Amino acid sequence: MKNKKLVLAARPNPAISTEIFRLEEKQLSSLSDGQLLIKNHYLSVDPAMRGWVTDMPNYIPPVEIGTVMRSFAVGEVVESKHSDYAVGDFVYGLFGWQEFAVSDGFDVERKVNPDDGPLSINLHVLGMTGATAWFGLTEIGDPKHGETVVVSTAAGAVGSMVGQIAKARGCRTVGITGSDEKAVRCLNEFGYDAVLNYKTATDLAGDLTKACPDGVDVYFDNVSGPITDAVMNQFNIGARMTVCGVIGISPEHVNGPRVSRTMLVKRAKMQGFLIFDHMHRLSEAVAGLLPLYKAGKLSFSEEIFEGLSSAPRGLESLLAGTNQGKVIVKL
Amino acid sequence: MKNKKLVLAARPNPAISTEIFRLEEKQLSSLSDGQLLIKNHYLSVDPAMRGWVTDMPNYIPPVEIGTVMRSFAVGEVVESKHSDYAVGDFVYGLFGWQEFAVSDGFDVERKVNPDDGPLSINLHVLGMTGATAWFGLTEIGDPKHGETVVVSTAAGAVGSMVGQIAKARGCRTVGITGSDEKAVRCLNEFGYDAVLNYKTATDLAGDLTKACPDGVDVYFDNVSGPITDAVMNQFNIGARMTVCGVIGISPEHVNGPRVSRTMLVKRAKMQGFLIFDHMHRLSEAVAGLLPLYKAGKLSFSEEIFEGLSSAPRGLESLLAGTNQGKVIVKL
Repeated sequence: MKNKKLVLAARPNPAISTEIFRLEEKQLSSLSDGQLLIKNHYLSVDPAMRGWVTDMPNYIPPVEIGTVMRSFAVGEVVESKHSDYAVGDFVYGLFGWQEFAVSDGFDVERKVNPDDGPLSINLHVLGMTGATAWFGLTEIGDPKHGETVVVSTAAGAVGSMVGQIAKARGCRTVGITGSDEKAVRCLNEFGYDAVLNYKTATDLAGDLTKACPDGVDVYFDNVSGPITDAVMNQFNIGARMTVCGVIGISPEHVNGPRVSRTMLVKRAKMQGFLIFDHMHRLSEAVAGLLPLYKAGKLSFSEEIFEGLSSAPRGLESLLAGTNQGKVIVKL
Repeated sequence: MKNKKLVLAARPNPAISTEIFRLEEKQLSSLSDGQLLIKNHYLSVDPAMRGWVTDMPNYIPPVEIGTVMRSFAVGEVVESKHSDYAVGDFVYGLFGWQEFAVSDGFDVERKVNPDDGPLSINLHVLGMTGATAWFGLTEIGDPKHGETVVVSTAAGAVGSMVGQIAKARGCRTVGITGSDEKAVRCLNEFGYDAVLNYKTATDLAGDLTKACPDGVDVYFDNVSGPITDAVMNQFNIGARMTVCGVIGISPEHVNGPRVSRTMLVKRAKMQGFLIFDHMHRLSEAVAGLLPLYKAGKLSFSEEIFEGLSSAPRGLESLLAGTNQGKVIVKL
């Protein structure tokens, strides 16, 4: 049986383009004891790939030139010499941009139940995106019923999940986003109680005060920078803040108000968060997210690219920001 | 029976001087049911008093003009119509700068065992200072055996306690202080493994790297500002930081590097800390501190002023920084 795969052909120079990947076709060798063969159904396309294809040290080693592109995927076990996996099992893990993956089980994050919903949701709602929102909000932010939760990049993949989980927990949810179109989605689709467009706001601090009449208890931050300064000024005593992204810190703008005094006066907590630290607990996140999904409380968007060879275009679209929702490749 | 007390006669204008207090003598009225009469033995003099005597809103209301100056004290119950307290009990609480205090029990923080050591230690090692160090370090910093704990204002009342508690827990302790004299005390008296004088350091970052060969796991911060920036650059993944004071943020220097990226990359935690939130759990701190004190593992200094009328001079000395250790008034 033959396997088609996308290998990393070159490092970005400087930008990522479809040219840095190469399609290869190779004969699959037969399985050894302890291995399983996975037929991928859906491949994931993620912003983190920007880091994986460079040779800069990261929380995870770079993808080597000439090897299959690293990616999360959902697949079906089609052959097994591994006692934990049977033919017909569905699995989620780092199976790469390829049609088939030979695995020893270590790269399987969890078994997937196909009755939970479309297989593709295991790449976002019940995958990395969902788990990031789930653990970052529930373990660090720990929102209580009636508290106010503010989310930056409120319409994004992670932010929109955070807003919906917080809403389902009975919180007042306030989103911060960068376009009127996204603001409308925040209100109508993701159920935020209030939304601010930071790009058109002339008085962000004043708008935040109005949107958060009881102050801010939890802040799920994907941006840092001046938006975060404004939110921190509205903190209640004992506020909690999840630092999930820092895209608002541009090289020209690395300085800003010191936060220590706010942290002290408000006895607030701040904690950096990386989902890879929590992947071994993915099933806990799924156990929390699945009831919300089944109850129709988790809205999301997918943009599906068809066929293995479309994956690099999917990544290009994601990095250019022209995608509509979670980018997925269907095989 | 007559009671002598120091009342607040005026607000600071602008500095605190001995003139803002006035000594008064008044007849004590007899106790009502539910009250107890406390004879103060030792009065506390604390930096927090700077805030209490102004009329600016704080975490605690200002001391009213004409009323007794608020202060922690250790005293003896000399008369009681309160079922929880008997004559001869020793108590710690907010009894004020006066010889006798009439209490309804609400201002008693805890009963004191005179066999634990000199009564005065209940004003610092087993009082607010100790509890600040204890909860701030153990609950927020949560240091594990073998970890590296960095303390700013390492020779100060709180900092020196933090260093010693961390040392007793088997940590490598690194102190940052502002004079060679204090640096010597840090090493010889408070048992720090390494100490840095930030005022004479020409390369604080380099010195920190040498002093913390395994990075920084816990940072107990009493200063904020550039010192804190340098320490944060040495954070290990999962570092914890207690924000206990921000004296390093001067009005001319409110800007500094944004901390969010450090917090994210290191998945570090930062939390503001105010001891008044934890006063109802003071006995827990004492339970932790007492064995250390009895084992001779808690070094401290006291500067005793004799007589009630010396309290304002004690405060002046403390605010001028000419004191040697914890300032206490002995009655």
